[in-house]
Amino acid sequence: MSCNIVKDPYAGLGVSSKKEGVHRAIKNLSKGLYPGAFCQIVSAPNCLPEDIREKYVQIIHSDGVGTKSNVAYIAYQEGLGRKFLKSLPQDAVVMNTDDMLCVGVTNDIYISNHIARNANRIDNDSLSEIIQGYADFFKKMENQGINLYNAGGETADVGSYTTTMGIDVTACATIPKTDVIDCNNIRPNEYIVGLESFGKSTYEDKENSGIRSNGLTLAINTLLHQDYRKYQEVMDQTVKKENLFTGKYHLEDKLEGTTLTIAEAILSPTRTFLPVIKKIRDEHIGISGIIHCSGGGLTKSINFGKNIAYIKNGVNKIATPAIFQEIKKSKNISDYYMYQTFNMGIGMEIIVQTEEDAEKIIKIAKDFNIGSAIIGHTEESNGENRVEINNDQELIYTK
Amino acid sequence: MSCNIVKDPYAGLGVSSKKEGVHRAIKNLSKGLYPGAFCQIVSAPNCLPEDIREKYVQIIHSDGVGTKSNVAYIAYQEGLGRKFLKSLPQDAVVMNTDDMLCVGVTNDIYISNHIARNANRIDNDSLSEIIQGYADFFKKMENQGINLYNAGGETADVGSYTTTMGIDVTACATIPKTDVIDCNNIRPNEYIVGLESFGKSTYEDKENSGIRSNGLTLAINTLLHQDYRKYQEVMDQTVKKENLFTGKYHLEDKLEGTTLTIAEAILSPTRTFLPVIKKIRDEHIGISGIIHCSGGGLTKSINFGKNIAYIKNGVNKIATPAIFQEIKKSKNISDYYMYQTFNMGIGMEIIVQTEEDAEKIIKIAKDFNIGSAIIGHTEESNGENRVEINNDQELIYTK
Repeated sequence: MSCNIVKDPYAGLGVSSKKEGVHRAIKNLSKGLYPGAFCQIVSAPNCLPEDIREKYVQIIHSDGVGTKSNVAYIAYQEGLGRKFLKSLPQDAVVMNTDDMLCVGVTNDIYISNHIARNANRIDNDSLSEIIQGYADFFKKMENQGINLYNAGGETADVGSYTTTMGIDVTACATIPKTDVIDCNNIRPNEYIVGLESFGKSTYEDKENSGIRSNGLTLAINTLLHQDYRKYQEVMDQTVKKENLFTGKYHLEDKLEGTTLTIAEAILSPTRTFLPVIKKIRDEHIGISGIIHCSGGGLTKSINFGKNIAYIKNGVNKIATPAIFQEIKKSKNISDYYMYQTFNMGIGMEIIVQTEEDAEKIIKIAKDFNIGSAIIGHTEESNGENRVEINNDQELIYTK
Repeated sequence: MSCNIVKDPYAGLGVSSKKEGVHRAIKNLSKGLYPGAFCQIVSAPNCLPEDIREKYVQIIHSDGVGTKSNVAYIAYQEGLGRKFLKSLPQDAVVMNTDDMLCVGVTNDIYISNHIARNANRIDNDSLSEIIQGYADFFKKMENQGINLYNAGGETADVGSYTTTMGIDVTACATIPKTDVIDCNNIRPNEYIVGLESFGKSTYEDKENSGIRSNGLTLAINTLLHQDYRKYQEVMDQTVKKENLFTGKYHLEDKLEGTTLTIAEAILSPTRTFLPVIKKIRDEHIGISGIIHCSGGGLTKSINFGKNIAYIKNGVNKIATPAIFQEIKKSKNISDYYMYQTFNMGIGMEIIVQTEEDAEKIIKIAKDFNIGSAIIGHTEESNGENRVEINNDQELIYTK
C-alpha cells in the first residue's frame, strides 16, 4: 500500500515534530569535531596539556521536558499532588543523557538544571519537589553504577513570559576519543536493533507507557478532555481553542491495556537506556551507530550516515504501546505521521555489523527486562538517505 | 539617616530580587568543591588521568536574559525591527561569563544556548537573528583575545507555556586550580574597587545604559507606558494589571542625560568585564574576591566571605546612571530597594589587599575606557556578614 499523506495533525498546534524552522536557523553553525555524530562533540578544554587534549573530547548538550510539564501542572491543580512534578527532572535529564549515549557517553555526566517558572503558580514547595526530583533520579542511577553529578543551575521567575514552567537541563561530559560513537560509521547491510521504550525494566518502579518526552503537545491535545481548557495558562493563546484538548480522557481514567491512568501514562518518566548501553559498551560489543528515537520518532535515522537506506521491516516485532494506539485513534492519524512524531514503542535503535552482536544486545536488554528485536537492516541508498517502515507487510513510511 | 524600610516595589510583580524561595529550595544541594566561591566549581572529569584531575576544575553555569527579552519583543512588534532580538544573546552569554570570571574563568568558554519560544510570535527569521547574535558576540570577544565557542543548544517550541521567548545559556569552562578565585579569601581591611557598568568602553559600539540583566521586571514596569498593556502576551496574568506598565515612557522617547532612547537604554546589551579581568589576571594582580553585582545588586556581597563587613562609603565616586535615576523617580523607590535590586552603575566589585593593586586595576579599566574607583573597604564583622552603603554621607543601606 502506498502512503497517503494526510493533513499534518500538528498543524494548528503551533509546533512541528520535524523542526524545519530551527534546522534552517542553525544551518551555518559549527557542527563540532564529528559533524555526523548524533550530538555535537567539541574539543577538550584548551588549558589541558596538549597530549591530554589530543585524547579526549567534550560533549555539552541541552534539552528539556517540553510541554509535558503542563500535564504535571494540571495534575497538581486537580488535586493529584506534587508527585508528577517530582518526576519531571528525570524527563529533563534523560532527554539529554539518552542523546549523549548515542555518541558514547555512559557515565560521569554533570547536570545543570534550568527552571523557568511563574512563581505565582509554581510555588516554592513545588520548586523544592522538582529539585528533590533531580537528587532522587541521581540516586537511582547511582544504584546502577552510573554517576550523575549536580553542577548547579538557575531558577528564573519569569511570569511575564512563562505561564507555568519550563524544566530544562544542560549536561556535560568528557570522554576519550576512543569511546566516541559516530553515526558516520553506519554502513549498508547492518542490523538495526530496537529497544522497547515501554513496560517495566528492572530499574523502574512502575510500568512505563513508553511515551518519553517527544510529541507531547500532540499527545496532550488529542488525549485530554476539553474540561481542561479551564486552565487558560496551558492554552497557547496563538492557537485556536478548538484545536486544544480535544480528547476524551480525564487524568484519572484508566488507559486500557495498561496498569496506568492517563495522567500516569502521559507523565511516565522518560526511560533512560544508560544502564543497557553501559553494559553493551562494557562488554565491548561493536556498534556502528545509536539513534535515540526522539524528535522525528522512528524516522529520525534519516539524518545519520551517508547513502544509507534504513529498511525497518520488522517494527511489528515490537508491540505498539497503548498510548500511541489511543493517540492514533483519537484523531484518525495516519501511521505516516505517527511514526515521524512518536517512538511507537522503540526508544533506541542500535546499529551493529553482525547478527551475533544483535543477539548479544537483545540478551543484555532482556536481563534488564527490556524487550528488543532486530527491527530492520541497512542498505545502500543512492544519493540520499532513506527510511522505509513496514508493519505487517504494509509500507507505512517511506522518504 | 536611618533607612526607612518602605514597601517592596517588587511586591505585586510576581518576582523577587533576593530569590529567597529559590535559595530555600536548593539549600540541601551540593555546593561543589569551593562552597564559598561565587559560582559552583566541580571536579575535573573522572575519565582524565589522576594527575590531571588533581590540577584542574570545571565550572558549569546557567543563566539567562530573563524578562529583558519581552522588551525586544515589544520593540519588534512596534516596528523597530529585529536588531534588539539580535543583542539578547550577548545578555544571556554575559550573565554567565561575568559570573564565571568571579571564580577566575577569563577565556575558552563553551556556550550552549537554550531558546524557548512561542513559534507563532517568534518566527524563524527572528530565531535566525537571535542565533546570529551569538556568532556576532563571539566574534567581538575574539577581537579581544577571548575565545567563546558554540557548543550547540536547543530551540523548543513550547507555546503552551511560553508566551514570547526565553533566552538562556549554559556555559562550561575548565581552569587550573591555581587560577581559582574563591571569595572565602576576602579578609578585613581590604579595598573594594567598583567597575562602571555604563558609558562606552573601547569594545562597545554604543553607549551602555548600565542596566545589565537584573531588575528588569521592575525597570520595565516602572518605565514603560500603559499603552504597552495591549501586548497581553507580556503581561503576567497572575499579577494585577494596574501594577504593570505604569511608567511614562514610550520606546522611542529619549532618556535624558544619555544618547539613548528608552528602548536602547533598557535593552543595552549587558557589558562583559571579561577583557578587563583577563588583563588584570594576565598582569598577576592579587585578587581576594570578585563579586558580580547581579541579583541583589550592590548588596550581593553579603553572601561572600566570612565575618566580613562591606563598608561601601564611596559609591558616590561613581555616578548613578540616568536609567536608575528614572526608575527611582518613577515610583519614589527608596535607595534601600534600589541598591538591593540594581547595580546602580557598579557592575563588578573587585576586592584587593593593597591600595597599590586597586590603583593598578583602576588604570587597566581606564585603558578600556571604563570608569572605576575605590568604593569602600572591608572590616571585620561579628558573627554575620554585613553590608553598609553610604552615598554622600547618608547611610542608604545596612544589613
